[in-house]
Formats: sequence, structure tokens, C-alpha cells
Amino acid sequence: MTIEVGVLGYRFMGKAHANALSRLPMFFPDAPDVERSVLVGRDEEALREAADRLGFDSIATDWTDVVDEVDVFYNLGPNHVHAEPSVAALSAGTPVFCEKPLAPTLEDAERMADAALDAGVTNGTAFNYRFVPAIRYAKRLLDDGELGEIHHVRGRYLQDWLVDPDAPWSWRNDEEMAGSGALGDLGAHTVDLLRYLVGDDDLAGGMERVSGHLQTFVEERPVEGSDETRPVTVDDAYSAQVEFENGAMGTLEASRFANGHKNDHTIEIHGSKGSLRFSLERLNELELLREGDRGYETILVTDEDDPYVDHWWPPGHVIGWEHTFVHENYEFLRAVAEGDEFVPGFEEGLAAQRVLASIEESDERGEWVAIE
Amino acid sequence: MTIEVGVLGYRFMGKAHANALSRLPMFFPDAPDVERSVLVGRDEEALREAADRLGFDSIATDWTDVVDEVDVFYNLGPNHVHAEPSVAALSAGTPVFCEKPLAPTLEDAERMADAALDAGVTNGTAFNYRFVPAIRYAKRLLDDGELGEIHHVRGRYLQDWLVDPDAPWSWRNDEEMAGSGALGDLGAHTVDLLRYLVGDDDLAGGMERVSGHLQTFVEERPVEGSDETRPVTVDDAYSAQVEFENGAMGTLEASRFANGHKNDHTIEIHGSKGSLRFSLERLNELELLREGDRGYETILVTDEDDPYVDHWWPPGHVIGWEHTFVHENYEFLRAVAEGDEFVPGFEEGLAAQRVLASIEESDERGEWVAIE
Amino acid sequence: MTIEVGVLGYRFMGKAHANALSRLPMFFPDAPDVERSVLVGRDEEALREAADRLGFDSIATDWTDVVDEVDVFYNLGPNHVHAEPSVAALSAGTPVFCEKPLAPTLEDAERMADAALDAGVTNGTAFNYRFVPAIRYAKRLLDDGELGEIHHVRGRYLQDWLVDPDAPWSWRNDEEMAGSGALGDLGAHTVDLLRYLVGDDDLAGGMERVSGHLQTFVEERPVEGSDETRPVTVDDAYSAQVEFENGAMGTLEASRFANGHKNDHTIEIHGSKGSLRFSLERLNELELLREGDRGYETILVTDEDDPYVDHWWPPGHVIGWEHTFVHENYEFLRAVAEGDEFVPGFEEGLAAQRVLASIEESDERGEWVAIE
Amino acid sequence: MTIEVGVLGYRFMGKAHANALSRLPMFFPDAPDVERSVLVGRDEEALREAADRLGFDSIATDWTDVVDEVDVFYNLGPNHVHAEPSVAALSAGTPVFCEKPLAPTLEDAERMADAALDAGVTNGTAFNYRFVPAIRYAKRLLDDGELGEIHHVRGRYLQDWLVDPDAPWSWRNDEEMAGSGALGDLGAHTVDLLRYLVGDDDLAGGMERVSGHLQTFVEERPVEGSDETRPVTVDDAYSAQVEFENGAMGTLEASRFANGHKNDHTIEIHGSKGSLRFSLERLNELELLREGDRGYETILVTDEDDPYVDHWWPPGHVIGWEHTFVHENYEFLRAVAEGDEFVPGFEEGLAAQRVLASIEESDERGEWVAIE
Repeated sequence: MTIEVGVLGYRFMGKAHANALSRLPMFFPDAPDVERSVLVGRDEEALREAADRLGFDSIATDWTDVVDEVDVFYNLGPNHVHAEPSVAALSAGTPVFCEKPLAPTLEDAERMADAALDAGVTNGTAFNYRFVPAIRYAKRLLDDGELGEIHHVRGRYLQDWLVDPDAPWSWRNDEEMAGSGALGDLGAHTVDLLRYLVGDDDLAGGMERVSGHLQTFVEERPVEGSDETRPVTVDDAYSAQVEFENGAMGTLEASRFANGHKNDHTIEIHGSKGSLRFSLERLNELELLREGDRGYETILVTDEDDPYVDHWWPPGHVIGWEHTFVHENYEFLRAVAEGDEFVPGFEEGLAAQRVLASIEESDERGEWVAIE
Repeated sequence: MTIEVGVLGYRFMGKAHANALSRLPMFFPDAPDVERSVLVGRDEEALREAADRLGFDSIATDWTDVVDEVDVFYNLGPNHVHAEPSVAALSAGTPVFCEKPLAPTLEDAERMADAALDAGVTNGTAFNYRFVPAIRYAKRLLDDGELGEIHHVRGRYLQDWLVDPDAPWSWRNDEEMAGSGALGDLGAHTVDLLRYLVGDDDLAGGMERVSGHLQTFVEERPVEGSDETRPVTVDDAYSAQVEFENGAMGTLEASRFANGHKNDHTIEIHGSKGSLRFSLERLNELELLREGDRGYETILVTDEDDPYVDHWWPPGHVIGWEHTFVHENYEFLRAVAEGDEFVPGFEEGLAAQRVLASIEESDERGEWVAIE
Repeated sequence: MTIEVGVLGYRFMGKAHANALSRLPMFFPDAPDVERSVLVGRDEEALREAADRLGFDSIATDWTDVVDEVDVFYNLGPNHVHAEPSVAALSAGTPVFCEKPLAPTLEDAERMADAALDAGVTNGTAFNYRFVPAIRYAKRLLDDGELGEIHHVRGRYLQDWLVDPDAPWSWRNDEEMAGSGALGDLGAHTVDLLRYLVGDDDLAGGMERVSGHLQTFVEERPVEGSDETRPVTVDDAYSAQVEFENGAMGTLEASRFANGHKNDHTIEIHGSKGSLRFSLERLNELELLREGDRGYETILVTDEDDPYVDHWWPPGHVIGWEHTFVHENYEFLRAVAEGDEFVPGFEEGLAAQRVLASIEESDERGEWVAIE
Repeated sequence: MTIEVGVLGYRFMGKAHANALSRLPMFFPDAPDVERSVLVGRDEEALREAADRLGFDSIATDWTDVVDEVDVFYNLGPNHVHAEPSVAALSAGTPVFCEKPLAPTLEDAERMADAALDAGVTNGTAFNYRFVPAIRYAKRLLDDGELGEIHHVRGRYLQDWLVDPDAPWSWRNDEEMAGSGALGDLGAHTVDLLRYLVGDDDLAGGMERVSGHLQTFVEERPVEGSDETRPVTVDDAYSAQVEFENGAMGTLEASRFANGHKNDHTIEIHGSKGSLRFSLERLNELELLREGDRGYETILVTDEDDPYVDHWWPPGHVIGWEHTFVHENYEFLRAVAEGDEFVPGFEEGLAAQRVLASIEESDERGEWVAIE
């Protein structure tokens, strides 16, 4: 049986997932057979060109024609297009894979998670950083208790593409379309990754309350190809303090104004027995301090028995950012083929959204906010 | 003229300052002549041994005999001993140099700053990290506008000496004696360093409001040489979010539970034109991104024209932590000799204390607190 | 027109090149169309499985049937199989792409280069590290004179897979089949990369003479699945000193016994105006010191205008080792389609071989050897 | 009893040792009492100023008046002044501490070592890097067999102060006065450090043969304060390959032309069980790979039980370059007080010199040279 995939969105994320799908047969031969069946978008010409390049059989300009025709629906559009097509697909019994953040608003995210629950089909939120070998290896260590009781957690996602006040306006600067700025775009990854790594009850447990801070440094931006400017209605950066169930302290931060950092997502964890550090710009590495060690060990997570690595190349032959999408698609499509649950699903997408919404609420109210 | 110095405290800080005083003649020949005149403490035997080793002429077990007899009084005792002797010395017209944090409580700090103002003599708070060559070089760059408008500021001071729950109780774990824990001991350094680096009006300006979080992970600790335990009444760690006058965002953190970090005080600043990073465990280095650079430059701040370096060794011959005390004492004693103001004085000690107190208050109230 | 490719070798290198071929359409749409036509090997069953997985239309167990039937012949077999099929293909007018080192002996390499010259068709030696974006960016800087006059060059390739004396014997340990050990396998890359980077006349110029040192630490190794051992007849490690035409000094080294290093190929260059450093285990980065800089800048070579990067992902989204093969195949196949010369060709393969042979000769004679 | 020290040389090394002597009482209370008795030099005015600043009781312009009057003679002059005064002092039964390299020529070094043997008094060569805590800690690990059988050894000492062709001529550029250039000045440290670390019979054993390469990049340099130039008659840089008794391979290198490196002495060792790396510009750190580790651990060698550290500051409070002189002087003076042998003595100074001389000879002959 071949899974026919319909994909909404043909830019950055469309390319990343199409690439992932195309690489499965050679590297993950036990993945289900997949056909890139239909690519969905609005600009027919651009769409046709993209479909051709990305290996899709056909195109469609109306997603309503697609969501019940395909075996799986990938929703890779801008945030404000996440809810409606995803809910429609789920209602039609079609498994859905949706980019993060799950939705621009908590309400939409709840609606989507409800629809997923009702539908009872496989659903996924595309938190691809759970599928970095080094992160997965870190998770193993945490589950084995190698770090002991968790005391401190840090997550920071730094980019610099808006530090120039003349960088052009895009949908990512608009509250209607994006929901939030750095918070939703980058913070969603951080929140999910920390939930994944330390959220289990025998580690730090859930995030119980947060104190958030959002800031917009540049209030309006030029519209490309015109003399106009448009207002920036989302945050350029956020920070947050978190208290976990076990008392662990978290500090979170993201910015699009961090000069010198392109895609620098760092995670740091200190436990009673050890510590670890990870940076996405060196994603093949994990810095680890085990019990009895005197300093952090810089580990190249490229050995044969490291997560997913046996599918790729010999030790020391590093992989890149895009490989996380291959692993993610592999796991998602296997779940689809088996009718299994996929984690992170819409439930995890919603859980992250709740934290983000609480951070925003905290910022508005100027006080700590409990996370439901 | 020789300045006779009386020093209260003969342990860690007593040794650090005595060493600094002893090294001035060889390396800072234009420093005033100093006599290590009298060492003050309570345990006469230990005191005598220390005075001998640290090169003091005499000892005294009662500071009241000393504060008006010496030309300068160094208060290096535990925090709860900062206020009374310092105020007495100032009242006697004796210049005072006091270890940080200025006092265990804001009230004490205010009393001390008032006394300093009234006395009109040179006074100093021992924020020695202002005197790291790399930090001073960073300050030059900031003052020259090399980083542009300041957007983000981070300060983190990580240690791990309490992560073992059986690490013994000390005065540093007691609210009465220490005032606070990681917050006052480590956070005071961070707050002062950030005030120094970006606090000017044309940079980030003052810290306007904070949101703080304090945590005590281990509630009681064994008393050394007994079967008892005593309660830990201060924080083991704190975090804070800060908003500066210009809208810049700050995140602060310190911990005594950060496994793998011994004395790791890091500062990070992102501006519209550049960024910088500093770590105390590599204190000869500054990581700097200037306008037009593609990445951080790792600079060894040991060139002849770097701050204070011409007094020491040729380029690449690194200095250590203790050298910051030499620079600090040099500047303080020169100010004393000239009857000049020394910065950071008690005023700066108090300003840092205000931030720390606001962080505590914010933690208690669960909301942002404005800094007066 | 579609180029039909025949590939000899279906293991590590077969997979790396098949992957590269399969990725061209999506990321390098201006590459010629390629058909993975026939996969050549001896073990029919393994071959059939590989052809299926790697996307080949057919298989062949005799390369003589293939070399004149395809449009391009890829020779990815063990070193001792490089010469004969490559020469046969060239004689049939078929362009050839051959893995490095070009041959196990200098004589074979000369024969191959002669055949390439006679044939007048496109030919390539697979020195893929010339196609790392950071290396290509470094080359740009060198060509622009940013490093000034070259004084020092270092190249080191460290692996550790033979440090265990019980690691099994393979063809790579056999002089007949491999020619040499670390020298040919790893040193070939280093020699080529240094020739590429600084070999131009206005940089360091050619390598004029070498002093070499080869060492075998473990004399025999167990044969997998048997009680036998076989002798190791090649070097486990080599080092060399090089003098360049302009007087620059080079130090070269490679080892399969460097504990803790998996695939660590580092290049360092010091010139009169600047310096640079590169490590394959962090292949997205280049450390660069420009004139006037105070330290090395750590550059993430992932910007849109960096070599090849616009074909992939946005800044900061790092690529992996395998991407170097995509770039290499892209350039090679374009040259084939246009009937152009490809650099590095067999000529460059031979030039590297001459240096390697001189290092061996120097080791045997215990004296410096001039490179013809 | 107080040891009266006479010191020849009052510039860089004079200051470094005077500082070390002055710091002993406070930090190494069990060191013998030392009096900085007489400072020897030729320029009386400069000498008087230096003696005053460095804490010497008196001055002398003729060393012959000094060598038999003091309890210990420190020879810190330029290399060509090492032999005669040292031999005279030893002949008078005065213990001698001499800066490295022991002498400008092998003949002088032999004469000095003979004199030391005949005199039977304590003698030392000032290889201060043996006294870096991280190096001493590394030595402990090596002695405990933590690295297993030694396969590879690397030593590199990079500076950049001559890369500017207009940097002025000094005695260090003159063969008569210095003996050699980077080789003797920097290479002496490297050779000694490697002999210290792995020279024992159960580690790599002695250096058996070398292949050397010396280069002078700039043939003449301006004389400061004149229009003249003088020829550079020593090497600006050297490299060498070494074979150790156990078959281990060594690569050595030093340069005064390595742009971006100020005082970067790095040591790397790979053994069958582990590896280590050290850099003088981060001298508080050791990078260590132990058996079973997956990567290098970055260790801050500042714990209480690390070598010499208990004399200084708490963990994480880093020391500097100058501290190595304090440790060295402490050990040397204790040996003097006890009439004990000090290691490294003139014997070790001579052994290093033999290696350096063999490197020069190898360079001249263009072939490997056995080390006696």
C-alpha cells in the first residue's frame, strides 16, 4: 500500500518535508511507500513550478478538494491557515501533520486538538527538534536518571534577521496571521523541547506557572516593493521564567534581534547528578557532564548506536538540520500506516500553546500565571 | 605619606585583598604606599597566624578600636557585619572599602550609603569584576557605541558547591547573617556589572522593573562536626527578568546548584550593531561581534594597550582572578590618597541592593516590581 | 538529454554518490538529468538489494560490459580496482569519476592520468572536501589576498577506528589492495585540499619537497568470522613536513589511532595578514582572522551568498557531510554535459599521488625528497 | 636561615622571578625564607630603578662579584650569558637556577651540565610550564596509565610578534646571542614538556630520532632608533617529526609568524585508552578523554586537590601565567634548602638542548638524525 500525501504549503516548510519524503526509501527502507500526490497553494504558476521541482503528481488551489481525497494531509501553511483545513481533514478521517505552532490562538489550538481527539486518526505537530539524534540521546540519558533530580532548565532560541529596522514586513510580523512573533515561532520549539526532555513526572514534571515578558523593538516595517510601512503587531523577542512541578526553575528566551545568531536554539539542563548543553547550530554535538565527571564532555552523537544514525553515515560524518525532518516524517508515516498514535500529536501542540498563551497573559497582567 | 590600612576579615576576602595590597609596589609603582597595619577578627589565635602570613603589623579583636585609628578601613567580614563597623568608620571620617553585597538588608545598605554621603570621604563597594581587563575593554567598546542600541542583556553566575545535599551549613545559608543566598552573593555581582556596562543613559539606561524568582532546593543542611542540621533560610538560586529604561530586556540568574560550573559568571549583550560575551572562567577572553562581522571574534585581552595589562606581562601571558583585586585596590587607594570619589562607591552598592530587594519583593508578590 | 550513469561499488561510497545523484533535481534544478542506470559489483544478491534501495535500473557483475555502454562511469571500488576499469572506460570515450586516492600506486595513477589525457573526455577525482561551502569560502578569501603571504599550513586528519588492536582486518590494511593506509585514505584528502587552497603561484605555490614518517602500530589483525589474523601491510598513521615554493612550511598528519576523533579533518593556514582554521566535524564553520582583527571570528558559513548555500536552507540551518557529494556531483555532471574539464580531475588526483609517493619514499630513505 | 639570592637579569624574566619570590611567604608558608639580595646588570641606572621596584637590597654590575657571595644564583640573562656566570657560580659551590634554553650552543650546555655534576649542588633549568597545575595533573594521569600506550604526541608553540616585517631587530634574532630563534626560545619549552609528560620508559620513552625543518621568513630587520637594518641569523619558525623509543610519533612546531596567536603553547597526546589537550592561553583547563568516554571533557583544574591549587583560591577562581613561576621557585628553593636535587636540572636542560641541536642538524643535512 502506498500512502498518498497532500501537502498545503510549498515554500520553506514545503521544501523541507518534500525533501524528507523523497529521502525515505534510500535511508529508511522500512518506511511506508509514499506518493507525493498533490501540492496545495494559491498561486497556480508558482505552485506548478514547485510541484515539478518537489516531485508532486498534481496541484490544487483549493484545499477543500484535497483533505478528504488523500491518505494524509500535511498542513505547512502560515499559522492562520492551520486550523480550518486541519479540522476539515480530521473530520474527513484523514490523518493530519501540522507545522508548529499549532495555531495562532489558543482557541484555534483547542479546536484542533478536539477535532483530532474526535477523529481518532493519527495526528502530529511538527516539532522536528525532538528528532535530532543528540536530543534523543539526551532524552535517553534523562530517562535513565543520569542527570538525577532536575534543578535548572534553560531554553534560548536566538536569530537576528529582524535586527535591521529596514528588514521587510512579513506575515510573521502580524498578529492576525501569526498569532505571536518570536514567542510562537521560536518559543513553541523551546517549550515543546523542554516538555519532551524533562516533562515526565519523575523528572521536572509539568510547567506549573510562568512569568513572561514580550517586547517589540521596531514598531513598523517597510513593505517590500512599495513605499508603505506596516505595523509590527507581534513580539520581536520574549523571555519567561518557569516553575516546574518538582520545583525546578526554567528560564526561556527567544529573539529575532540577537546579532550574530542565525538559528541558535540552545538547551541547558542541570540536575543533581549531571548537566547537559545542546546548540542547534552544532546539532551533531551534545555536551554532557555525568556523575563523577569534572567537566562537560563534548560528544559527537554520530555513532552507529546513536538514535537514527545507523541509517546514515559512519561515525564522525555529520548530518544537517534537514535530517530531523526525515526522522520526523519516518515516525509519523509509520504511525499512520499502523494506525498508531504519533507523539508529538495535536495534544502536545496544544500543551505548548497553553504555555505560550500563559506567557502572553503573564506579560499583559504583569504577574505570574498558572498553567492549566 | 603611607596609608595605614585596617582590615576586618582574614579568610577568603582578607587573603585576596592582602595579596592585592602586597603586589602594588612592584606592578603599580604609582600607587600610594600602603602599610598593612592591623588585622581585625575575633579568634585571636587564628588572627595572629593570619596576620603573620598576610603581612600585617598588628591585630585587634575589637573593630571599634580600629576604625578611627587607621587611614582606611576595609570591611571584609560576613554580610551582617558590614553595616555597623562601616558606619562607625565613616562617622570617624575614615574612608571605607566594603565587600559586596553592601549589606544583608536594603535598610542597612541605605544607612551605609547615607553615612558615606554624610562623611564625604572616599568609599567603595568591592565589585571587583568591574576591574577585569576584558570587562573594562568591553565598557570602552560600549561607550564608543560599537554595539549600537542595546536590545538584550544576560547575566548568569553559576556555581555548584551546594548541589550535594550533605554540603555543610554555613553563614551563607542564613538569612540573618547573609541577607540572601545566591541572589546577594552572586546576583549582586551580576547586577552591578550590568549597571556598569549598559546602565548609562545612552546605552540601556537604568533597570526600571523586575520580575524575580527565588528557590531553595535543600531545606536544611548538616552542621559540620555535629549531628545537627540547620535550616537554609536563603535562596539556593534565583532568576529574574529585567526591563531597562530604553526597552532592553534582561535575564538574570544565579545558582549554587549548577553542576559542572565552579565560578562561571557570564555576561552577554546584544545591540543593534554588535554583540559580546564574557565568562569569568576564561577571564582573559572577550567574544565580540562588531558591525560587519560574520561571527564572534575570540579576543585575548592581554595586549599592551588593554586596560591594566601594561602593568603585567607581555601579550598572551594570561592573568588570573586575583589580579582584579589588585586593579581594584589600586584605583581605590589612589582615590583615597587624592581625596577623590571612587566608583563603584556605596552609592553603587546601594543601587545594586535596590535591584536585589526588588527581585525578592517580586518573588514574594508574584508580580513585576518597579525599581525606585 | 538524460545522462546514464554506471556505478562500480555499492557500499559506503556507492550510497554517498547515489544519494547525491538523487538529490540533484530538487535542489540543483539546472543540473543535467541523470539516470542511475546500472550498478556494478560482484556479489549478485547484495548488488540486487543495493540497486533496489539506491534507485538503479539494473545491475551488472562485470564492469567490462558497462564502461562503454553508459554516458558516465563512476569508479567507487576499492583502490586496487581503480585503474583497470577507469582506463577501459576512458579508452571507450566514457567520462569517468573515480574515488580517491586515484590509485594504490603512482604507476597506476600515471597510467590513469595518461588515459584521461588521451581520451580527452571529462574526468574527475572525488576530492569532495573541495566542495564544502566553508572551504570554498576560504578559497575565495585566499584568492582575494585576505590572508596575505602564506607562511604556515597545517593539515591533520584524525580517526580512531583502529586504536583497538582487535578491530578486524580489512582491505584498507592491505598494501596490495589499498596501496597505503592512513596516508592514502586520509592524507590524499589533506594533500589535495592544501594544493587547492594555497597551491596557486601567488599563494604558497607547489609543494617542493617533503619529509615523511609512516608508522604501523599493530602488526596483524583478526579476520572477522575466523580464528586467523592477517598482517597489516600499510601505515596506521603518517606525518610529514612540507616546503612550498614560496618558502611556506607545512605539517601534515593522519591517524587511525587518534582516540576521541572520528572524522576530524582540520586545516589551518597562517598568512602575513590573517589566519584561518577549519574542522570537518564542524563543517558549517570557518574560523577566520582578518587583517586588523584581534582574534579568530567563528563564522557560520550558511548565508545565502555563501557557496552553494542558496540551494539549500536559510541561514543557520546547517548542512551535513553528505552535501559535499551533491555539490561535487553537480559540478562534475555539468562538466560532463558541457564536455568541459572538471577540476579536480585525474591530473589533480595524480598530483596528490605524487606527494603521497614522495612521503613514502622519504620515509624509506630517511631524508627529504623533492616532488617532481 | 634565610637564603640570599643573587639575580642576573632585570627585565621580563627578572620581574617574573622577583614576583615569584615575593609571593612565597603568603601562599607557600613552608618555603624557605628568601632575601632578594642583589640584582646584577650592566646599565646602572636602569638596574637601580629595577632593584628598587623588584625589592632587591643591592645591585652589582659585575657578576663575578656576586656568584660566590650569594646562597643561590639566578641566571636570567640572554642566552649567550648563560654559560660563563653559571659555571663560575657552580664552581664556587653556589646553587644555580638558569633560564631556558640552557645555552645557545650544545657545547655550552654540555659544559654547564658537567659543571653542575662536578659541583654537586642544586641546579635548575627554568622550564616553568612543568609547574602549571593542569600539566602536573596531566602527568599524574599519564603516570597512572590513564592514557594507555602512547601513540601520538604533538607540541606547538605559536606567537605572532615577528609577522610584521618591520618589527625591530633584537638579540633574539641573532645566532651569536640567542643560539637559535623560535627553536630555542619556544621549542625548548615544547621538547622539555613532552620529555616530562611522556618520556618515562613505560610511556613513550626517549626521543630517538628527529627530522627538522627551520625557516627564516624575513632576512633582515630594522634596528630601533636608527636607519640601519641587521640580518636575522636565526629561524623564525621550525617544525620537526620525532620518533620515540616505543614507536610513538611526535610532531613539533613553533613560530613567531602565526598571526592571531600570542602565546599559544599547545600539547596533545593520544594513547590507546585516552587522549588529552592543553593550551597555555587557557592554562587553567585540561581537555581529557578517558577510557569509555565519548568525547573530551573540559576540566577546570582549580579544585582543592589539584596540584598547587590549595595554596591559592577556591575552585573556579583561575590563576595566571605568573603562578607557574611561584610553583617553580617554591620547588627549587626547597631543594636548595634541603640540599636536594631539583628536576628539571641542568641535566634536563642539556637533554632538551640535544634534541634542539639534532633538529638543527637534521635541517642542515636534510635527513633524520639520531638523538644520542
